[in-house]
Amino acid sequence: MSANASEAERRALICEFLGQFYERGWVAGTGGGICAALPDQTILMAPSGVHKERVVPADLFVVDRRGAVVRMPEDRDLRLSECSGIFCAVMERRKAGSVMHSHALSAVLAADLARDTDRLTIRELEMLKGIRGCRNTEVHALPVIDNKPEEPELVGEVERVLDHPDFVAASCILVRDHGAYLWGTDLWETKRHAEVYHFLFDAVTARWRLR
Amino acid sequence: MSANASEAERRALICEFLGQFYERGWVAGTGGGICAALPDQTILMAPSGVHKERVVPADLFVVDRRGAVVRMPEDRDLRLSECSGIFCAVMERRKAGSVMHSHALSAVLAADLARDTDRLTIRELEMLKGIRGCRNTEVHALPVIDNKPEEPELVGEVERVLDHPDFVAASCILVRDHGAYLWGTDLWETKRHAEVYHFLFDAVTARWRLR
Amino acid sequence: MSANASEAERRALICEFLGQFYERGWVAGTGGGICAALPDQTILMAPSGVHKERVVPADLFVVDRRGAVVRMPEDRDLRLSECSGIFCAVMERRKAGSVMHSHALSAVLAADLARDTDRLTIRELEMLKGIRGCRNTEVHALPVIDNKPEEPELVGEVERVLDHPDFVAASCILVRDHGAYLWGTDLWETKRHAEVYHFLFDAVTARWRLR
Amino acid sequence: MSANASEAERRALICEFLGQFYERGWVAGTGGGICAALPDQTILMAPSGVHKERVVPADLFVVDRRGAVVRMPEDRDLRLSECSGIFCAVMERRKAGSVMHSHALSAVLAADLARDTDRLTIRELEMLKGIRGCRNTEVHALPVIDNKPEEPELVGEVERVLDHPDFVAASCILVRDHGAYLWGTDLWETKRHAEVYHFLFDAVTARWRLR
Repeated sequence: MSANASEAERRALICEFLGQFYERGWVAGTGGGICAALPDQTILMAPSGVHKERVVPADLFVVDRRGAVVRMPEDRDLRLSECSGIFCAVMERRKAGSVMHSHALSAVLAADLARDTDRLTIRELEMLKGIRGCRNTEVHALPVIDNKPEEPELVGEVERVLDHPDFVAASCILVRDHGAYLWGTDLWETKRHAEVYHFLFDAVTARWRLR
Repeated sequence: MSANASEAERRALICEFLGQFYERGWVAGTGGGICAALPDQTILMAPSGVHKERVVPADLFVVDRRGAVVRMPEDRDLRLSECSGIFCAVMERRKAGSVMHSHALSAVLAADLARDTDRLTIRELEMLKGIRGCRNTEVHALPVIDNKPEEPELVGEVERVLDHPDFVAASCILVRDHGAYLWGTDLWETKRHAEVYHFLFDAVTARWRLR
Repeated sequence: MSANASEAERRALICEFLGQFYERGWVAGTGGGICAALPDQTILMAPSGVHKERVVPADLFVVDRRGAVVRMPEDRDLRLSECSGIFCAVMERRKAGSVMHSHALSAVLAADLARDTDRLTIRELEMLKGIRGCRNTEVHALPVIDNKPEEPELVGEVERVLDHPDFVAASCILVRDHGAYLWGTDLWETKRHAEVYHFLFDAVTARWRLR
Repeated sequence: MSANASEAERRALICEFLGQFYERGWVAGTGGGICAALPDQTILMAPSGVHKERVVPADLFVVDRRGAVVRMPEDRDLRLSECSGIFCAVMERRKAGSVMHSHALSAVLAADLARDTDRLTIRELEMLKGIRGCRNTEVHALPVIDNKPEEPELVGEVERVLDHPDFVAASCILVRDHGAYLWGTDLWETKRHAEVYHFLFDAVTARWRLR
């Protein structure tokens, strides 16, 4: 997808990626979500509470940078993603062009390994090079925040860790008992980061079992 | 699927979902099954002992609310699901519009974790919100009943736990060494509950291993 | 597939099943195989040493009940399955209509659990009912034999356990460090038995880990 | 694929195999790669840093035996695989016709099991017969080398172990914390070796857990 991909192309790509994420178990049970900026700085956002592998391009919302709906999907019964506040916070503070929310079990288990601390540290894995700006010799620290009853209540903590100097290299936030938010400069980088971070979640959990 | 989906749409959806469940290992070896109510309160029910990923719309039985066959499938050699009595009990006592029977190994292992008790308790997982009426702050209790040589012998225990005050929030019953029965208000909610409960089975088992 | 399925239908079904088995990791790396009797008592048999998901109907051999080639595949470079002697022994002694050879890791691990004995015993699983003639209250015993450098060297031990009174209920033989041979009255029962036995291998291994 | 498969056939096969490898998690997050010799001894090589399941035949580079680009892909923004030096070293020293680079977690975990030594030894597995020239009675030794910040820095160690007398039977090198390089006489043998070695990585790790 080039930088000037049309809105139609981005809508199609969001749906294709949701199908792939579903196959991997990252957005099961209607959970999870994704968004992507449009060239005019509005944001395409997936609906809430629907079977994510069945989302079609016409189902997407267009929202402004504060998450206010600019254009409704054709199906007026659809509701905007509960993640919209978090998505907007990440896009603003990290200049992200796309954010993905995962409900993968591997993300939950990786956060479990950081039960008594505020971060997951990952090291000694070539796959770290798949994260923007990261080398395989680094110790990569991901913030881990506590879950809340409703997703909008997470926004404050999300903003705090996005601004925290220890986590400037992270393109992902883990939410305990819940999953992960991860992002990239565009949809393709977000897909790459999704594959890389889920690999890393699996790796740290498998290594803990084999320790 | 809207509330007034035609019988043909429901038949097609049942077959599509059986194919998805098969891919996930929930209905392997001809095991498992599914049913869905029709607008006239009769029930579409999958046949017994057939390869579930190969069921076609014409293979479904139509039964009344007590499980008596109203309309046979085109193939007269097909037999009605052994689960029909359990399916009818769930539909009556929980006003369910659809019930699914899973033979997933994850359901067997989750029940194993409750070896010495009559319930599996699940907590501290965002995915609990995927269950109708459930919040992520709750301790969700699923009844676990003992297996029997034949499925009709399970009906009494199924009815007992459906009526048990401790399990009013549950949309699922675990059967030891066997699998799970789970349900929703319609086929779509049953699919969502299937994905959510199998995620929860995997989660409690993985957390037990990582404890 | 009805009893009078044509040879063309059986050839197509063998190839379709090999594709499914490949997806599940049961015939990776060109390993594994399958055969099915034809109405004239000759036997369709898959070739050896080829990528099993790419076998096409014209690639199958026709052999007689002793494994002698009656009809070559169109591609004259293909070699007959190394399993032909074992396949013929199972078809003769168990009146099987089809035999499958699995290289699944789950079969290897299940046999590992029987390291110091000549059998794997499986109990307390509803899925046992998926095996012809088996109830879920039984203790199901599978013979486990030692591997040999070449598959034809296994025939003697295979014949011994096929005739052993302890294993009359088994439709499967485990070969240590290697995999499994399993069978049914026709291709469809063999597919069901393949799914059931691989589920059972996974189950006994997972339960051992959770013990 | 016959020995005189056309360049177009090899380009198509490389893309098909990358799609299969992606499905298995061996080339996620834009990692991994593959190359194959052409009849004129130039080499088709996949690009670097792209989503491997989306590579199309026109995306491949043609390089000479030292890795110098002979023909660019149509898309001039593509960069040559970082593995080119390693690919060329393997092709020269082992007369390989194709080399694959895997980022599979199973390869990382298998190398972890050899933490204090320079090799992984694999024994007592029929699947060893899937490796060219290997019998199931052998103890198969794979070299394990340390990872480096950049892939070209691995070439020296790769050459050393390719020439080491202990590893003449190996068609695979493990790189700690990173993955594996594996090869065959042509694309088809490389695919078989990929399936066999990844099975073996899974097997040694699963056996370690069950020990």
